[in-house]
Amino acid sequence: MKLTVYTRSLRLHAQARGKLQVKPLVPLKTQEDLSLAYTPGVAEPCRKIAQNPGKIYTYTRKWNTVAVVTDGSAVLGLGDIGAAAALPVMEGKAILFKEFGGVDAIPVCINTRDVSEIVRTVVLISPGFGGINLEDISSPRCFQIEELLKEQLSLPIFHDDQHGTAVVVLAGLLNALCLVGKKLSEVKIVVCGAGAAGIAIVRFLHRSGARKMILCDRQGIVYQGRPENMNPAKESVCEFLMNQRGTLAEALQKADVFIGVSAPGLVTSEMIKSMNKEAIVFAMSNPVPEIMPDEAKKAGAAVIGTGRSDLPNQINNLLAFPGIFRGALDARAPEITEKMKKAASQAIAGCVPRRKLSSDFIVPSPLDKKVAQAVARAVYQAAKE
Amino acid sequence: MKLTVYTRSLRLHAQARGKLQVKPLVPLKTQEDLSLAYTPGVAEPCRKIAQNPGKIYTYTRKWNTVAVVTDGSAVLGLGDIGAAAALPVMEGKAILFKEFGGVDAIPVCINTRDVSEIVRTVVLISPGFGGINLEDISSPRCFQIEELLKEQLSLPIFHDDQHGTAVVVLAGLLNALCLVGKKLSEVKIVVCGAGAAGIAIVRFLHRSGARKMILCDRQGIVYQGRPENMNPAKESVCEFLMNQRGTLAEALQKADVFIGVSAPGLVTSEMIKSMNKEAIVFAMSNPVPEIMPDEAKKAGAAVIGTGRSDLPNQINNLLAFPGIFRGALDARAPEITEKMKKAASQAIAGCVPRRKLSSDFIVPSPLDKKVAQAVARAVYQAAKE
Repeated sequence: MKLTVYTRSLRLHAQARGKLQVKPLVPLKTQEDLSLAYTPGVAEPCRKIAQNPGKIYTYTRKWNTVAVVTDGSAVLGLGDIGAAAALPVMEGKAILFKEFGGVDAIPVCINTRDVSEIVRTVVLISPGFGGINLEDISSPRCFQIEELLKEQLSLPIFHDDQHGTAVVVLAGLLNALCLVGKKLSEVKIVVCGAGAAGIAIVRFLHRSGARKMILCDRQGIVYQGRPENMNPAKESVCEFLMNQRGTLAEALQKADVFIGVSAPGLVTSEMIKSMNKEAIVFAMSNPVPEIMPDEAKKAGAAVIGTGRSDLPNQINNLLAFPGIFRGALDARAPEITEKMKKAASQAIAGCVPRRKLSSDFIVPSPLDKKVAQAVARAVYQAAKE
Repeated sequence: MKLTVYTRSLRLHAQARGKLQVKPLVPLKTQEDLSLAYTPGVAEPCRKIAQNPGKIYTYTRKWNTVAVVTDGSAVLGLGDIGAAAALPVMEGKAILFKEFGGVDAIPVCINTRDVSEIVRTVVLISPGFGGINLEDISSPRCFQIEELLKEQLSLPIFHDDQHGTAVVVLAGLLNALCLVGKKLSEVKIVVCGAGAAGIAIVRFLHRSGARKMILCDRQGIVYQGRPENMNPAKESVCEFLMNQRGTLAEALQKADVFIGVSAPGLVTSEMIKSMNKEAIVFAMSNPVPEIMPDEAKKAGAAVIGTGRSDLPNQINNLLAFPGIFRGALDARAPEITEKMKKAASQAIAGCVPRRKLSSDFIVPSPLDKKVAQAVARAVYQAAKE
C-alpha cells in the first residue's frame, strides 16, 4: 500500500528533525580565524557600523536575510493552530527561499495574537533582517500588521499570502487572456474569497487595469455598507468593485474570469456554463479546488488553473516570492512597490514562451529555477527605476 | 607592513558579507520533495504539533536552535553601540556555536533598552528556539532580563558573559589550585570588576565552595550598604562576601587569587607582591589585561591566566558555551542549573591531563574541539541526574 503524502511527510520530518541548519561562511580552524571572525578583530566591523549604520549591509548577512514571520493564526488550510505548530511551514518556506532565491530565511514564530505586539516584536528584531516575509496571518489582522510595519520600517515587507498570490494570479491571467484574446480592462472578473489573498488579488488587479470586478465571500457578493461580515479591508475595496448584490452564482453570470481562493466545491457546472465564452477559471482552493478542472472543462471553460501540483497550470506562490525578495534585496529596496510586483507578474508570464503558450501551459513550473532568476532581474530593475 | 587584526577582520567581513548562511536539510528538487517539505504534506507535522506541543522537538529544528540575543548595550570592550552594530559579534558567536557545539544559532538583535520589552520579545519569539543565549547586555539589566526569562520560559537561558565566564574561571581555578596545593574553600579570592562577569563569578565560586571572597569595582571594595555605585546585584552578593572595606590594593593584601574582569593596568607589581605566596592571577581584561603576565610573574605570581590568545592559559568562554548548550539541548533540559555549570567546569579542567598540568597549561586550548564534546557529555549527565 502506498503511503499518503501526509505519512511520507511526517516520516521525512522525523528523520530530518527539522529542515534547515545554520552554516558558517568563514573558516574557524586557527587562532587567526577566531581573531578575525570573533574577538578581537570583530570589534572593527562593529565600530564601522556604529559610525555608519548603512555599513551593516557590507559587514553582516543582513543584506541576504529575511524573517519568515507568523503568528500561526491562519496556517495552510489548518486555520489557527498557533505559532509553535506553524514552525514546520515556516521552515519549509525558509528553505524554499534559499533553494529558489538564494535568500537566507529564518522562521520567526510569534506567540501572540495581539496586532500591536506582533508589529512591535518585528520592529524590535528588525536590525538583523534585510526583509520581512509575513506568512499565514489571519485576515483582516494581516492587513493592519503589514500596514503598520511598512510605516515603521524601511525594509521590504511582503505578506506572501496576499501579494505572492496576487502576483502569480496576474501572471497566469495575462497569459490566459492572451490565449483567449480578451483584455484585462474589459473582462468581468469574479474573485471568490475575501481573506488575505482575495483582497490582495482585487487590489492588485485593479491597480493593474482590471475595471469590472466582483468580490464574493461566504455571504455572497461583497458591497459597500453590507450589514454583515464586513471589515475595513472589504469596505476599502468596494469603491472600485462593480455595484452589484447577490450570490456567487449571480456574480458569475456573463463573467469572463473566475478566481477562487475560497473553499472546495463552491462552484458548479451550471455556474461555469453561465459564464461568457472562453471563460478562464482559476480554482485555487487547496488541496481541493472550487471546481475540479475536468468538470469545469466539460462545462465549457477554456483555460483552467488550480493550486495543485498534480494538475496543469499550478498557480503557486513559489513562482513569485523567492525572485521578488532576491530582486528587492539585491536592489536594497526600502519597500516592495506595486511596480516591482507588476514586474514580477510580467516576468513570470514571460517565462512561458509565446509559441508554447496553450490552455495547459499558462504558467511555468514551480520547479523551474530560471523563473526566480527572471523575476529577480525584473524586480531589481523596477526597484532601481 | 603587516595589517592589524582589525584591518584584516574588516577585510574578511567585507569579502564574506556576513558570516553565516541558512542551508536546507532536505531535498527540494522534485515535485515529491516539495509536497513533503512544503504543501500539502507539511500539514501533517503541523497537526501533530498542534495536538501534542512536545512534538515540535521531533518535527522541527527547535531541538538544535539557539537564539543569540543582544540589545547591543555592552558589546565587547566597545560599550553601548546599539543592536545593529552588535550584529557582527552575534554572527561570530553563532558560527562558534555551530563549529564547536554543532548548535544552530541565530542572531537576534533587539532594538530597545527597555528590560520588559526585551523580555517580552524573547518570550514571544521563543517557539522557534530550543535555548536562549544572552549576549553583551549591560549590567545590572542583564540580571533582571535573565531572571524574568527564566521565570517565563522552560528553556535553557544562559547569559554567556556571566555564566560562561564563571564556568571557565572555575575550571582554570580548579587546576591552578591543584598546581599550588591550595583549597578553594580556604583561599582568599579577590574579584575585580562588578559587572555581569564579576557578579556571576563570585556567585558561582561561592556556590562551588569558595568562602573568602572580596569583590571590587572602580570605587574599591563592594560592601553592604555602601553609599555609592551600588545596585541590587551588588547588594545581593554582599551577604557572602568578606566583611571588609577599602581599596583594591588593600583587598589584595594576603590574597591567594586575583580574578580580573575589569580594565587594563589596574593591578601593579606592588599589589601582586602583597599577595600570599603561590598567588594565582587571572587578569582577563580584554585585550589588555589588568597586569601583563611577565610583570605579574616577576612580582611573584605562580600561575597566570589572561583572556588573550597570544599568551598561555587563555581563560576563554569558547571553552564553555558550545558544550554547555550541546549538552543542555541533547538532554532537552528546561534550564541550565548550577549542577550543569559545575559539571562543565570540571569537564573543562579535566581536559588538561594531570601529568601535563603546569603553570603554563591550566586550561585547554579554545581550538581543541574535544573540549566541547567533554563538556556536552558532562552537562548532559548532570541534566539527566
